[in-house]
Amino acid sequence: MQDPSIEIALIGAGTIGLSFAALHLTQNPNCTITIHDTRPDLQTYIQRHLPTYLPENANQEPYLARLSFANELPTAVKNAQIVQEQGPENLEFKVAIWAEIERHAREDALFWSSTSGIPASAQSREMQDPTRLLVVHPYNPPHIMPLLEVVPAPQQTAEAVVENTLEYWRELGRTPVVVKKECTGFVANRLAFALFREACSLVASGVVDVKELDEIVQASMGPRWTVAGPFKSYHAGGGEGGLTSFMEKIGGTVKNCWDASKEDVTANDVSVGGKWQEDVCKQADEAYGVVDTAERDMKTRKVLSAVADS
Amino acid sequence: MQDPSIEIALIGAGTIGLSFAALHLTQNPNCTITIHDTRPDLQTYIQRHLPTYLPENANQEPYLARLSFANELPTAVKNAQIVQEQGPENLEFKVAIWAEIERHAREDALFWSSTSGIPASAQSREMQDPTRLLVVHPYNPPHIMPLLEVVPAPQQTAEAVVENTLEYWRELGRTPVVVKKECTGFVANRLAFALFREACSLVASGVVDVKELDEIVQASMGPRWTVAGPFKSYHAGGGEGGLTSFMEKIGGTVKNCWDASKEDVTANDVSVGGKWQEDVCKQADEAYGVVDTAERDMKTRKVLSAVADS
Repeated sequence: MQDPSIEIALIGAGTIGLSFAALHLTQNPNCTITIHDTRPDLQTYIQRHLPTYLPENANQEPYLARLSFANELPTAVKNAQIVQEQGPENLEFKVAIWAEIERHAREDALFWSSTSGIPASAQSREMQDPTRLLVVHPYNPPHIMPLLEVVPAPQQTAEAVVENTLEYWRELGRTPVVVKKECTGFVANRLAFALFREACSLVASGVVDVKELDEIVQASMGPRWTVAGPFKSYHAGGGEGGLTSFMEKIGGTVKNCWDASKEDVTANDVSVGGKWQEDVCKQADEAYGVVDTAERDMKTRKVLSAVADS
Repeated sequence: MQDPSIEIALIGAGTIGLSFAALHLTQNPNCTITIHDTRPDLQTYIQRHLPTYLPENANQEPYLARLSFANELPTAVKNAQIVQEQGPENLEFKVAIWAEIERHAREDALFWSSTSGIPASAQSREMQDPTRLLVVHPYNPPHIMPLLEVVPAPQQTAEAVVENTLEYWRELGRTPVVVKKECTGFVANRLAFALFREACSLVASGVVDVKELDEIVQASMGPRWTVAGPFKSYHAGGGEGGLTSFMEKIGGTVKNCWDASKEDVTANDVSVGGKWQEDVCKQADEAYGVVDTAERDMKTRKVLSAVADS
């Protein structure tokens, strides 16, 4: 990424595509972006929706001036140094589009898929050179949240591709983390869904309702894990003996919780589509109606800035 | 809590006791506190250690002036309107001490146990009037973290005791949440340990290391859940259709993650004391050494203040 100017092709103009466009435009003053999507109203659509992702009260013209639009894939990718895909979550689509992208893109272009679950090793099936592709999975929305899970295909994606990808995102002030195996759901969703399952189980048990559970997390783990992740937190909790000492002292409680969790998840049938689901969804509707994501994003920016400054 | 001045007895002068003392003293200018502990150097000990829990650069004299010390339990509790216990996590100790406290305390005093796991219904076994006791479980350290899990003994603790407890903590700007059943581990630890188990399993699988996993959480769920808990987040993720729509769209991924989680936790033997544990603890030592909790607490205050102000 020594080149001060860089051209990026974004494939797919859904909400993730718009959010990534805003991220590149605001954090990387040297980039120009071509957005590809087959929708006929592409330019009008982007010009209408992108501004809600850009900083309020800023002059948006300089951002929009660095954008172009392409309904044809070859046009979109031909000059790009980065091709970033956020199309449908469909293996056949991805296999076909990467083979086509490879035919038209520069030989040194980086290929990134935003998929939340289809590994690069599967997407690259019909590529001539599968060493070029990896997954860059955002935590939505990427123009706000710092995390990018960088998931190379083990023994396939080239080391230099991984390094250049990390370098790009670090220069933009983001937090790219390499996931070493193409495990189901990658890491962030696996962690979040594990807690979510326990949350659903506790609500199904009638211990707390949906809103109370959210209050509990917002007043405890949320702020704690913003500053120190779970391992660092429990390591600190063990004092000078660290996590080893924490497990010696609290291991019994951890075991009791894990055992109770297993029993309750089974008793409450907390599987997707289980009987609990309708009630939990109804409680969420009643508690929150339609969530104001602009307010959520504004508060999230303040939280991130508080922890970054300190 | 109409009385502008209030006397509080704190039973047990460990780290939780000191942290609660700092919380009451700093957030409630109308309180005086008597700390009870059987250690012979009680006063010297408190005067040496309490200042690290109090605001830096503040004149600490006015805080310390509102403290007194009692090696004898009856002296400590006799005038208190709140008796808050953070003694050893031992059922026999708690059963005995509440019976004794009840004999010496005012009839209108609130009785709170800080236990992380022994329910009020068990602790109150030898009390004349078991309607007076409930659990007020902090998320450590309570002088920083807003959450208090208020766990009455169902069909036993008086409604007025619950209400007065909530009122006290709300006036102090904290987040007390009622837990309706005395479930194992209450709610916060159940949730946190569920994610922790998944974290241990992913590290045991070699997907990421301890430090990378913490980075992932700090750059994603931490800040997100500080602003909106898991239900509110996924409800927002579903757009206008809310959580129902989220589960329709993402339910397949959730199911795949839950299934993979179950398989991996079993394959990695993620039980307390399992083979994974030594390696994870070693990684935590190497990554963090001894954690600077003062820095963590300072950053946490900033995060909490960012979300409170916005």
